[in-house]
Amino acid sequence: MTFWKFFFKNTSMIKLPINSIEKILLIKQIENKGKILDIYISIDHNINLYDLERLCDAVGWVRRPLKKVKIAIDHSFLTISLFCKKNKTKQLIGFARATSDNAFNATIWDVVIHPEFQGKGLGKALMDQVIKELRSSDISTITLFADPHVVSFYKNLGFISDPDGVKGMFWYPL
Amino acid sequence: MTFWKFFFKNTSMIKLPINSIEKILLIKQIENKGKILDIYISIDHNINLYDLERLCDAVGWVRRPLKKVKIAIDHSFLTISLFCKKNKTKQLIGFARATSDNAFNATIWDVVIHPEFQGKGLGKALMDQVIKELRSSDISTITLFADPHVVSFYKNLGFISDPDGVKGMFWYPL
Repeated sequence: MTFWKFFFKNTSMIKLPINSIEKILLIKQIENKGKILDIYISIDHNINLYDLERLCDAVGWVRRPLKKVKIAIDHSFLTISLFCKKNKTKQLIGFARATSDNAFNATIWDVVIHPEFQGKGLGKALMDQVIKELRSSDISTITLFADPHVVSFYKNLGFISDPDGVKGMFWYPL
Repeated sequence: MTFWKFFFKNTSMIKLPINSIEKILLIKQIENKGKILDIYISIDHNINLYDLERLCDAVGWVRRPLKKVKIAIDHSFLTISLFCKKNKTKQLIGFARATSDNAFNATIWDVVIHPEFQGKGLGKALMDQVIKELRSSDISTITLFADPHVVSFYKNLGFISDPDGVKGMFWYPL
Protein backbone atom coordinates (compact mmCIF):
# COMPACT_ATOMS: atom_id res chain seq x y z
CA MET A 1 0.00 0.00 0.00
CA THR A 2 1.52 3.36 -0.99
CA PHE A 3 1.87 6.14 1.57
CA TRP A 4 -0.97 8.18 0.16
CA LYS A 5 -3.30 5.21 -0.17
CA PHE A 6 -2.57 4.38 3.43
CA PHE A 7 -3.03 8.01 4.45
CA PHE A 8 -6.34 8.32 2.62
CA LYS A 9 -7.66 5.12 4.07
CA ASN A 10 -7.07 6.48 7.53
CA THR A 11 -8.51 9.96 7.21
CA SER A 12 -11.85 11.44 6.37
CA MET A 13 -10.57 13.03 3.15
CA ILE A 14 -12.81 13.05 0.14
CA LYS A 15 -10.37 14.00 -2.65
CA LEU A 16 -6.74 13.71 -3.59
CA PRO A 17 -4.38 16.18 -1.91
CA ILE A 18 -3.76 19.22 -4.05
CA ASN A 19 -0.12 19.31 -3.06
CA SER A 20 1.35 16.22 -1.52
CA ILE A 21 4.71 17.86 -0.83
CA GLU A 22 3.17 20.40 1.52
CA LYS A 23 0.72 17.82 2.86
CA ILE A 24 -2.30 19.90 1.94
CA LEU A 25 -5.45 17.81 2.12
CA LEU A 26 -9.05 18.49 1.25
CA ILE A 27 -11.04 17.60 4.35
CA LYS A 28 -14.47 19.12 3.98
CA GLN A 29 -16.86 21.05 1.80
CA ILE A 30 -18.99 23.69 3.49
CA GLU A 31 -21.66 26.14 2.42
CA ASN A 32 -20.82 29.77 3.01
CA LYS A 33 -23.05 32.61 1.78
CA GLY A 34 -24.76 30.27 -0.69
CA LYS A 35 -21.51 28.94 -2.17
CA ILE A 36 -19.85 25.56 -1.70
CA LEU A 37 -16.27 26.04 -0.48
CA ASP A 38 -13.49 23.47 -0.34
CA ILE A 39 -11.69 23.44 3.02
CA TYR A 40 -8.11 22.21 3.12
CA ILE A 41 -5.87 21.28 6.02
CA SER A 42 -2.11 21.71 6.00
CA ILE A 43 0.48 20.26 8.38
CA ASP A 44 3.34 22.57 7.72
CA HIS A 45 5.45 25.04 9.74
CA ASN A 46 5.86 27.24 6.67
CA ILE A 47 3.03 29.70 7.36
CA ASN A 48 2.54 33.19 6.03
CA LEU A 49 2.83 35.21 9.23
CA TYR A 50 0.74 38.07 7.87
CA ASP A 51 -2.09 35.66 7.02
CA LEU A 52 -1.88 34.32 10.57
CA GLU A 53 -1.89 37.84 12.02
CA ARG A 54 -4.99 38.70 9.94
CA LEU A 55 -6.73 35.57 11.27
CA CYS A 56 -5.82 36.41 14.88
CA ASP A 57 -6.96 40.02 14.36
CA ALA A 58 -10.33 38.68 13.14
CA VAL A 59 -10.94 37.01 16.51
CA GLY A 60 -9.64 40.00 18.44
CA TRP A 61 -6.45 38.52 19.89
CA VAL A 62 -3.79 40.84 21.22
CA ARG A 63 -1.10 41.38 18.57
CA ARG A 64 2.26 39.73 19.08
CA PRO A 65 5.62 40.55 17.47
CA LEU A 66 5.87 38.56 14.20
CA LYS A 67 9.51 37.74 14.95
CA LYS A 68 8.48 35.96 18.15
CA VAL A 69 5.53 34.29 16.43
CA LYS A 70 7.98 32.85 13.89
CA ILE A 71 10.26 31.52 16.66
CA ALA A 72 7.23 29.98 18.39
CA ILE A 73 6.06 28.25 15.20
CA ASP A 74 9.57 27.05 14.36
CA HIS A 75 9.81 25.49 17.83
CA SER A 76 6.35 23.99 17.88
CA PHE A 77 6.17 20.24 17.50
CA LEU A 78 3.05 20.50 15.35
CA THR A 79 1.51 23.32 13.34
CA ILE A 80 -1.79 22.83 11.54
CA SER A 81 -3.67 25.34 9.43
CA LEU A 82 -7.04 25.31 7.71
CA PHE A 83 -7.76 27.32 4.62
CA CYS A 84 -10.35 27.67 1.91
CA LYS A 85 -9.84 28.38 -1.78
CA LYS A 86 -11.73 31.36 -3.14
CA ASN A 87 -11.20 32.83 -6.63
CA LYS A 88 -7.87 31.04 -7.03
CA THR A 89 -6.54 32.50 -3.76
CA LYS A 90 -6.35 30.65 -0.48
CA GLN A 91 -7.52 32.19 2.78
CA LEU A 92 -6.20 31.03 6.13
CA ILE A 93 -9.31 30.35 8.24
CA GLY A 94 -8.04 28.13 11.05
CA PHE A 95 -4.89 27.42 12.99
CA ALA A 96 -3.53 25.41 15.92
CA ARG A 97 -0.11 24.42 17.16
CA ALA A 98 1.36 22.24 19.89
CA THR A 99 4.57 22.16 21.88
CA SER A 100 5.84 18.77 22.94
CA ASP A 101 8.73 16.77 24.35
CA ASN A 102 8.27 14.44 21.35
CA ALA A 103 7.67 11.53 23.72
CA PHE A 104 5.06 11.83 26.48
CA ASN A 105 3.35 15.22 26.62
CA ALA A 106 2.02 17.88 24.30
CA THR A 107 0.34 21.21 24.98
CA ILE A 108 -1.93 22.77 22.37
CA TRP A 109 -1.82 26.54 21.88
CA ASP A 110 -3.41 29.20 19.68
CA VAL A 111 -6.49 27.33 18.45
CA VAL A 112 -8.44 29.70 16.22
CA ILE A 113 -11.21 29.54 13.61
CA HIS A 114 -12.14 32.65 11.62
CA PRO A 115 -15.51 34.01 12.90
CA GLU A 116 -17.12 33.70 9.44
CA PHE A 117 -16.34 29.98 9.43
CA GLN A 118 -17.31 29.11 12.99
CA GLY A 119 -20.25 26.80 13.70
CA LYS A 120 -19.53 24.61 10.66
CA GLY A 121 -17.63 21.80 12.36
CA LEU A 122 -14.22 23.14 11.35
CA GLY A 123 -12.94 23.56 14.91
CA LYS A 124 -13.69 19.88 15.50
CA ALA A 125 -12.04 18.91 12.19
CA LEU A 126 -8.94 20.91 13.14
CA MET A 127 -8.71 19.46 16.64
CA ASP A 128 -9.38 15.91 15.41
CA GLN A 129 -6.36 16.31 13.13
CA VAL A 130 -4.22 17.74 15.96
CA ILE A 131 -5.06 14.77 18.19
CA LYS A 132 -4.51 12.31 15.34
CA GLU A 133 -1.08 13.75 14.54
CA LEU A 134 0.00 13.74 18.19
CA ARG A 135 -1.27 10.20 18.68
CA SER A 136 0.59 9.06 15.56
CA SER A 137 3.75 10.23 17.38
CA ASP A 138 2.74 8.09 20.37
CA ILE A 139 2.19 11.11 22.62
CA SER A 140 -0.23 10.01 25.30
CA THR A 141 -0.85 13.12 27.38
CA ILE A 142 -2.38 15.88 25.29
CA THR A 143 -3.08 19.04 27.24
CA LEU A 144 -4.40 22.54 26.72
CA PHE A 145 -5.64 25.56 28.63
CA ALA A 146 -9.21 26.41 27.69
CA ASP A 147 -10.96 29.74 28.10
CA PRO A 148 -14.27 29.30 29.95
CA HIS A 149 -16.44 29.70 26.81
CA VAL A 150 -14.69 26.82 24.98
CA VAL A 151 -14.47 24.30 27.83
CA SER A 152 -17.62 22.51 26.61
CA PHE A 153 -16.25 22.43 23.03
CA TYR A 154 -13.15 20.59 24.24
CA LYS A 155 -15.21 18.33 26.52
CA ASN A 156 -17.17 17.23 23.46
CA LEU A 157 -13.84 16.27 21.85
CA GLY A 158 -12.97 14.05 24.83
CA PHE A 159 -10.87 16.47 26.87
CA ILE A 160 -11.29 16.30 30.65
CA SER A 161 -10.84 19.32 32.93
CA ASP A 162 -8.96 18.91 36.23
CA PRO A 163 -8.77 15.07 36.07
CA ASP A 164 -8.25 13.67 39.59
CA GLY A 165 -8.04 17.24 40.88
CA VAL A 166 -5.00 18.16 38.75
CA LYS A 167 -5.04 21.94 38.35
CA GLY A 168 -3.76 23.98 35.45
CA MET A 169 -1.59 26.75 36.89
CA PHE A 170 0.03 29.87 35.43
CA TRP A 171 2.91 32.06 36.42
CA TYR A 172 3.10 35.51 34.86
CA PRO A 173 5.76 38.19 35.34
CA LEU A 174 4.63 40.97 37.67
CA MET B 1 32.67 42.14 34.61
CA THR B 2 33.35 38.49 33.70
CA PHE B 3 30.48 36.10 33.04
CA TRP B 4 30.88 34.24 36.30
CA LYS B 5 31.22 37.41 38.38
CA PHE B 6 28.04 38.66 36.74
CA PHE B 7 26.34 35.31 37.26
CA PHE B 8 27.31 35.15 40.94
CA LYS B 9 26.16 38.67 41.57
CA ASN B 10 22.73 37.74 40.28
CA THR B 11 22.15 34.45 42.06
CA SER B 12 22.00 33.29 45.63
CA MET B 13 25.12 31.13 45.28
CA ILE B 14 27.59 31.04 48.10
CA LYS B 15 30.63 29.40 46.46
CA LEU B 16 32.31 29.09 43.09
CA PRO B 17 30.81 26.51 40.72
CA ILE B 18 32.64 23.22 40.90
CA ASN B 19 32.42 22.78 37.15
CA SER B 20 31.67 25.82 35.08
CA ILE B 21 31.51 23.85 31.82
CA GLU B 22 28.53 21.86 33.01
CA LYS B 23 27.03 24.93 34.72
CA ILE B 24 26.97 23.21 38.10
CA LEU B 25 26.40 25.71 40.88
CA LEU B 26 26.39 25.42 44.63
CA ILE B 27 23.08 26.89 45.76
CA LYS B 28 22.52 25.82 49.33
CA GLN B 29 23.89 23.99 52.34
CA ILE B 30 21.44 21.85 54.31
CA GLU B 31 21.58 19.67 57.38
CA ASN B 32 20.70 16.05 56.81
CA LYS B 33 21.05 13.40 59.54
CA GLY B 34 23.41 15.64 61.52
CA LYS B 35 25.69 16.39 58.56
CA ILE B 36 26.04 19.55 56.49
CA LEU B 37 25.54 18.76 52.80
CA ASP B 38 26.33 20.94 49.81
CA ILE B 39 23.46 21.10 47.30
CA TYR B 40 24.27 21.85 43.69
CA ILE B 41 22.07 22.77 40.77
CA SER B 42 22.82 21.86 37.17
CA ILE B 43 21.26 23.18 33.98
CA ASP B 44 22.19 20.46 31.59
CA HIS B 45 20.37 17.97 29.34
CA ASN B 46 23.13 15.42 29.88
CA ILE B 47 21.54 13.45 32.71
CA ASN B 48 22.25 9.93 33.87
CA LEU B 49 18.95 8.23 33.08
CA TYR B 50 19.43 5.54 35.70
CA ASP B 51 19.99 8.20 38.40
CA LEU B 52 16.78 9.87 37.24
CA GLU B 53 14.90 6.56 37.29
CA ARG B 54 16.14 5.91 40.84
CA LEU B 55 14.91 9.36 41.91
CA CYS B 56 11.49 8.79 40.30
CA ASP B 57 11.29 5.33 41.90
CA ALA B 58 11.92 6.96 45.30
CA VAL B 59 8.75 9.06 44.96
CA GLY B 60 6.75 6.13 43.57
CA TRP B 61 6.23 7.32 40.00
CA VAL B 62 5.19 4.83 37.36
CA ARG B 63 8.25 3.65 35.42
CA ARG B 64 8.69 4.90 31.87
CA PRO B 65 10.87 3.48 29.08
CA LEU B 66 14.33 5.05 29.36
CA LYS B 67 14.50 5.46 25.58
CA LYS B 68 11.40 7.68 25.65
CA VAL B 69 12.67 9.54 28.73
CA LYS B 70 15.84 10.36 26.78
CA ILE B 71 13.81 11.67 23.82
CA ALA B 72 11.70 13.79 26.19
CA ILE B 73 14.78 15.29 27.87
CA ASP B 74 16.49 15.92 24.52
CA HIS B 75 13.38 17.79 23.33
CA SER B 76 12.80 19.74 26.52
CA PHE B 77 13.63 23.43 26.40
CA LEU B 78 15.02 23.34 29.92
CA THR B 79 16.25 20.56 32.17
CA ILE B 80 17.37 21.28 35.73
CA SER B 81 18.69 18.85 38.29
CA LEU B 82 19.65 19.13 41.93
CA PHE B 83 22.21 16.91 43.56
CA CYS B 84 24.26 16.63 46.71
CA LYS B 85 27.82 15.46 47.12
CA LYS B 86 28.36 12.64 49.58
CA ASN B 87 31.65 10.75 50.02
CA LYS B 88 32.98 12.02 46.69
CA THR B 89 29.90 10.76 44.83
CA LYS B 90 27.02 12.91 43.70
CA GLN B 91 23.41 11.90 44.25
CA LEU B 92 20.58 13.22 42.09
CA ILE B 93 17.99 14.53 44.55
CA GLY B 94 15.82 16.82 42.44
CA PHE B 95 14.70 17.34 38.87
CA ALA B 96 12.43 19.44 36.70
CA ARG B 97 12.09 20.10 32.99
CA ALA B 98 10.03 22.33 30.72
CA THR B 99 8.80 22.20 27.15
CA SER B 100 8.48 25.49 25.32
CA ASP B 101 7.98 27.23 22.00
CA ASN B 102 11.11 29.27 22.88
CA ALA B 103 9.06 32.47 22.61
CA PHE B 104 5.80 32.80 24.55
CA ASN B 105 4.85 29.71 26.53
CA ALA B 106 6.48 27.01 28.62
CA THR B 107 5.01 24.03 30.45
CA ILE B 108 6.86 22.52 33.40
CA TRP B 109 6.86 18.73 33.81
CA ASP B 110 8.31 16.09 36.11
CA VAL B 111 9.10 18.21 39.18
CA VAL B 112 10.51 15.91 41.83
CA ILE B 113 12.50 16.15 45.08
CA HIS B 114 13.81 12.99 46.77
CA PRO B 115 11.67 12.24 49.87
CA GLU B 116 14.73 12.39 52.19
CA PHE B 117 15.38 15.95 51.03
CA GLN B 118 11.84 17.31 51.08
CA GLY B 119 10.84 20.05 53.53
CA LYS B 120 14.23 21.79 53.28
CA GLY B 121 13.38 24.50 50.76
CA LEU B 122 14.89 22.61 47.83
CA GLY B 123 11.65 22.41 45.82
CA LYS B 124 11.41 26.19 46.04
CA ALA B 125 15.10 26.59 45.08
CA LEU B 126 14.57 24.30 42.07
CA MET B 127 11.42 26.08 40.90
CA ASP B 128 12.95 29.53 41.45
CA GLN B 129 15.74 28.49 39.09
CA VAL B 130 13.27 27.10 36.53
CA ILE B 131 11.33 30.38 36.53
CA LYS B 132 14.52 32.42 36.39
CA GLU B 133 15.82 30.47 33.39
CA LEU B 134 12.51 30.73 31.52
CA ARG B 135 12.23 34.44 32.26
CA SER B 136 15.80 34.97 31.04
CA SER B 137 14.55 33.60 27.70
CA ASP B 138 11.72 36.16 27.78
CA ILE B 139 9.02 33.49 28.12
CA SER B 140 6.06 35.19 29.75
CA THR B 141 3.49 32.41 30.21
CA ILE B 142 4.84 29.67 32.45
CA THR B 143 2.38 26.85 33.02
CA LEU B 144 2.16 23.52 34.78
CA PHE B 145 -0.36 20.91 35.86
CA ALA B 146 -0.31 20.43 39.63
CA ASP B 147 -1.51 17.42 41.57
CA PRO B 148 -3.95 18.49 44.34
CA HIS B 149 -1.42 18.05 47.17
CA VAL B 150 1.10 20.46 45.59
CA VAL B 151 -1.28 23.22 44.47
CA SER B 152 -0.53 25.27 47.61
CA PHE B 153 3.23 24.79 47.09
CA TYR B 154 2.95 26.33 43.61
CA LYS B 155 0.61 29.07 44.86
CA ASN B 156 3.31 30.10 47.33
CA LEU B 157 5.70 30.43 44.38
CA GLY B 158 3.30 32.82 42.62
CA PHE B 159 1.44 30.36 40.38
CA ILE B 160 -2.29 30.98 39.91
CA SER B 161 -4.80 28.19 39.29
CA ASP B 162 -7.55 28.69 36.69
CA PRO B 163 -6.85 32.43 36.12
CA ASP B 164 -9.98 34.11 34.67
CA GLY B 165 -11.64 30.69 34.56
CA VAL B 166 -9.05 29.17 32.18
CA LYS B 167 -9.17 25.41 32.72
CA GLY B 168 -6.35 22.93 32.36
CA MET B 169 -7.67 20.07 30.21
CA PHE B 170 -6.32 16.63 29.31
CA TRP B 171 -6.96 14.19 26.51
CA TYR B 172 -5.86 10.60 27.04
CA PRO B 173 -6.12 7.66 24.63
CA LEU B 174 -8.99 5.32 25.47
